[in-house]
Amino acid sequence: MTQLLRSRAELRAVLTSLPRPVGLVPTMGWLHDGHRSLIRRARSENRTVVATIFVNPRQFNRAEDFSKYPRNEARDVQICAEEGVNIVWAPPVDEVFVPGFDTTISVGAIAMPLEGAARPGHFDGVATVVAILFGLVGAEHAYFGQKDAQQVMVIRQMARDLALPTQVIACATVREPDGLALSSRNVHLRPAERAAAPVLRQALLAAAAQWRLGERSGEALRTMLRSTLAGVPLAQPEYVSVADALTLGELDRIEGTALLSLAVRFGSTRLIDNELLEWPG
Amino acid sequence: MTQLLRSRAELRAVLTSLPRPVGLVPTMGWLHDGHRSLIRRARSENRTVVATIFVNPRQFNRAEDFSKYPRNEARDVQICAEEGVNIVWAPPVDEVFVPGFDTTISVGAIAMPLEGAARPGHFDGVATVVAILFGLVGAEHAYFGQKDAQQVMVIRQMARDLALPTQVIACATVREPDGLALSSRNVHLRPAERAAAPVLRQALLAAAAQWRLGERSGEALRTMLRSTLAGVPLAQPEYVSVADALTLGELDRIEGTALLSLAVRFGSTRLIDNELLEWPG
Repeated sequence: MTQLLRSRAELRAVLTSLPRPVGLVPTMGWLHDGHRSLIRRARSENRTVVATIFVNPRQFNRAEDFSKYPRNEARDVQICAEEGVNIVWAPPVDEVFVPGFDTTISVGAIAMPLEGAARPGHFDGVATVVAILFGLVGAEHAYFGQKDAQQVMVIRQMARDLALPTQVIACATVREPDGLALSSRNVHLRPAERAAAPVLRQALLAAAAQWRLGERSGEALRTMLRSTLAGVPLAQPEYVSVADALTLGELDRIEGTALLSLAVRFGSTRLIDNELLEWPG
Repeated sequence: MTQLLRSRAELRAVLTSLPRPVGLVPTMGWLHDGHRSLIRRARSENRTVVATIFVNPRQFNRAEDFSKYPRNEARDVQICAEEGVNIVWAPPVDEVFVPGFDTTISVGAIAMPLEGAARPGHFDGVATVVAILFGLVGAEHAYFGQKDAQQVMVIRQMARDLALPTQVIACATVREPDGLALSSRNVHLRPAERAAAPVLRQALLAAAAQWRLGERSGEALRTMLRSTLAGVPLAQPEYVSVADALTLGELDRIEGTALLSLAVRFGSTRLIDNELLEWPG
């Protein structure tokens, strides 16, 4: 049975009666098969699964992006029920950020480049809301999609640094047949943009192929990413990156595991994707 | 039996075998009767008591203050044993701030005036280390001295905002017979400074007496605090405050519960104290 709860108090009360370990799947709703894969992994590793649906205003640096983020709670709850989620917590804002809320968690260097640079304040908002969810649910495990690779790194650092008892587990990106990473934002793509969007994946695969052939220059791979994107007029690149997979520092030479990542706009819709180059290849 | 532990792993392992609820008494060591009163309160309200001894480098804004902070671990452990503490956790710095540590918790408005203004970065250091201790120990209750009134408010806000499962409990300040609040820093006072130090308490009591007689002007009470301190040449006031007890905003008119507080230097030793004026008086 799936219970839909709204308040902190209800959540805590119901959790005390459910068996451990608890797996947490934090979401912003508009669930897709990527979320289903997180829930299934949580289901397989825990006796209780909690999914949260909360569009966190503090992680949007642009108000417009927040207001137009897609929402369909009834459908989300239905998906959670199908997947055997025990608790769906879909709180109003003031059950997450209580009245008078005034605390910020900031992660340092790992949160600075890429999404941190492109979206000021974004990772403070992410780290803070995730710490609250971890505090409330007290889960043994929490599941996040590898599509948001830097987010996983920021949350993992925060959880480790603050000795939070929740283990952060990254799950493989789920994709459309043409390679586009699933994202709630894909719904905003116009038909021509949707047709062009697989270029993110194509650019990453082209650069990864060069790397497997022995290319070790970071700049050569960044150029490959840029030139692939340049072949698609609708794609407006925001950044391309070939970075150390632990520090996210941009690499001149690839001499360890690297993370290829990029952010690209299609009209008003911003998409990201990434590919890990495991060392040794 | 009192166990002295050093690592996160030992602490977690031993805690799993001890009964709940757990009471946490975070200290920086050099224990005095104020700490004993916290431990006794924790003992009376919990089945397991954990005391931590950790001089947190991140909450000292001056390196000299950190290096000269008094330390005597053997004596501290003896006191904990006398008081029936189950676990003394006295970790090295890198068991609290793990290698690569890079996360900061910042509390907003409540952390800005008074000690926050006088000691830049102090409350970030306090909030962060206390969150780590709360995360590690997972205590039901944690005990702090009311002598550090603003610290209690900052920690309480942080714990509430982040939904930490640890309840923050403030305990009354313990004093010497002449009124001086117990503090580990008192050991640094030279004899003449020690003789002069009760002026903090005398100033607070004089202002509180005026308030009980009907004085409702914040500035009149601040003047009373300053003039009492001015009667003692060795006392160098850093601030005096008559503030709203919830917001710590300085008050023109007292129309609710107020907090009198002050910080005074005696040579190189800095002392603080406070008095709550409960409304209605």
